[in-house]
Amino acid sequence: MELSENELIRKLRRFGRKSGAVIRGIGDDGAVVNVQQGQYVLVQDALVEHIHFEFAFAGPYDVGKKAVYVNVSDILAMGAEPLYFLVTIGVPERFSYRDVQILYKGMDRAAREFHLLLLGGDTVATKGDFFIDVSMVGKVLARKYFGRNKAKSGDLIGVTGYLGESAYGLRLLQKGPLAQPVNRYIKRYQSPRPPFDVWKELVKNDITDAMMDISDGLIIDLERMMAESKTGARLYLEDIPIPPALKKQGLQALALSGGEDYQFLFAFPRNKVPAVDKIRKKGFMISIIGEVVRQRGVRLFDGEREIKLRTKGYEHFGTAQ
Amino acid sequence: MELSENELIRKLRRFGRKSGAVIRGIGDDGAVVNVQQGQYVLVQDALVEHIHFEFAFAGPYDVGKKAVYVNVSDILAMGAEPLYFLVTIGVPERFSYRDVQILYKGMDRAAREFHLLLLGGDTVATKGDFFIDVSMVGKVLARKYFGRNKAKSGDLIGVTGYLGESAYGLRLLQKGPLAQPVNRYIKRYQSPRPPFDVWKELVKNDITDAMMDISDGLIIDLERMMAESKTGARLYLEDIPIPPALKKQGLQALALSGGEDYQFLFAFPRNKVPAVDKIRKKGFMISIIGEVVRQRGVRLFDGEREIKLRTKGYEHFGTAQ
Repeated sequence: MELSENELIRKLRRFGRKSGAVIRGIGDDGAVVNVQQGQYVLVQDALVEHIHFEFAFAGPYDVGKKAVYVNVSDILAMGAEPLYFLVTIGVPERFSYRDVQILYKGMDRAAREFHLLLLGGDTVATKGDFFIDVSMVGKVLARKYFGRNKAKSGDLIGVTGYLGESAYGLRLLQKGPLAQPVNRYIKRYQSPRPPFDVWKELVKNDITDAMMDISDGLIIDLERMMAESKTGARLYLEDIPIPPALKKQGLQALALSGGEDYQFLFAFPRNKVPAVDKIRKKGFMISIIGEVVRQRGVRLFDGEREIKLRTKGYEHFGTAQ
Repeated sequence: MELSENELIRKLRRFGRKSGAVIRGIGDDGAVVNVQQGQYVLVQDALVEHIHFEFAFAGPYDVGKKAVYVNVSDILAMGAEPLYFLVTIGVPERFSYRDVQILYKGMDRAAREFHLLLLGGDTVATKGDFFIDVSMVGKVLARKYFGRNKAKSGDLIGVTGYLGESAYGLRLLQKGPLAQPVNRYIKRYQSPRPPFDVWKELVKNDITDAMMDISDGLIIDLERMMAESKTGARLYLEDIPIPPALKKQGLQALALSGGEDYQFLFAFPRNKVPAVDKIRKKGFMISIIGEVVRQRGVRLFDGEREIKLRTKGYEHFGTAQ
């Protein structure tokens, strides 16, 4: 880095955004905001180089965007609208100011898409790898917040969009990034924008009991929801939204456990099926993939036949299965 | 790490704290809290191994505590009371669960001292060095929030406690950690608890215009405050609270630019001097070290003689002075 910490912070300050509610933005020990009474959601999620991504497969612009998106995804999954965020970046010596600037431009782009305001954070040097850690605040918009613990036996299980796209995109990049034209899968991996429009429909029509975003893979994340709700689930393979290109290549597993889908997984009462159908008819992609049952655990069925689950999802520490 | 990410998060969940206002704590995509209308402060501050600390000089317990303290310090410096925090830790392979647990115990200890509730965050693996990044929310208690931009020409400049203690403690540790008995300087370095009691007096008596915490050193931090306020400052060396042990060894510079003091630096109107004297008489240490002037920049005087300032404070990127 060719700049001092002071100079860098001074330059980054222009990425701070203001609104009527922001009394003091970047440039002080902390930001000050006017807050209305209500329920608020707090999240914090990091991306670490060599663990969550490689710069070979996603440039600083994409990484900046993605760091915002994954936190927006968590806020939305709780039934809240994102408002403010702060960011810490850990900057290795090899980074130039230009790299940091491009990263901030990516964050800024994602933030604008969700009318989010950057209020501050920290910029630190590291002797090791790059990291970015975003904290975000949102306000609950849903009638009640969505929790992982709110699925009920008898509910149906829905999911937005296609699953496995991002994992397939990463696989294409790993085969040789330069040889690949940037297709929808690679785009989904590099820029996993949460499906905000269908989320708005789900909230407006008061569809869901429980919701979460799929970050580590359908099966492992559904297991987490079921464990929190003290319930279990039956999934039907033929109803899981697997892109035809993946089916053709026998890569269905990527849709079950590939991770980084950032689609919404939700449990909803059966009497909401007509309302879900109405949303689908507007052109939004929602699949009903299974049901919540009393018996613990997640079981997958192909017609009548139960499929044994091995790889459940992606975990970053050594001993994960 | 001998645990999977899932197992680790499950174990760390018990460090989450609840109150009536916390609707959903650790264990979901985000935490949900009931918030009253008002002004709130948001901060985020990280500590990175080999940049901000070495485990040779501070164990995981101290590092956990310090990560909370430095954020509490920022919240208090804005005139707010800390309420909630989230934390991301970047955990290298060489860490055991026990290390992480001790770190969380340190955070928990510091959190209890300030009635702070841990609500969530992220636990990530790193291929490189350890880092800890805390985000914190506080509610403004002061009549108006304290900003760095609120110093006025004619104000006096006050500071709490002694300066240079922490930097001197680090210097002692660097000479050989095992040879040193843990004295007050080493303690101040390892566990820089913000001076909450004197802060409460300052808030209660509505003393200050501008406030900040001294993290990088008196001179550099005061320069930041003056720049934000579009003012300058004159400091008087004989009034700066330098511990006698440092004076004896000619280490006055540590009090000016050593950094990590985490004492409060504040500008206040002259008519508050009697109120400041009353607080001092109660046994709280406050020094009046200079005055705010119209002419930009920070100048230091030893009696009539001006002292040229060279090293101003600590910066972490390569090209800092």
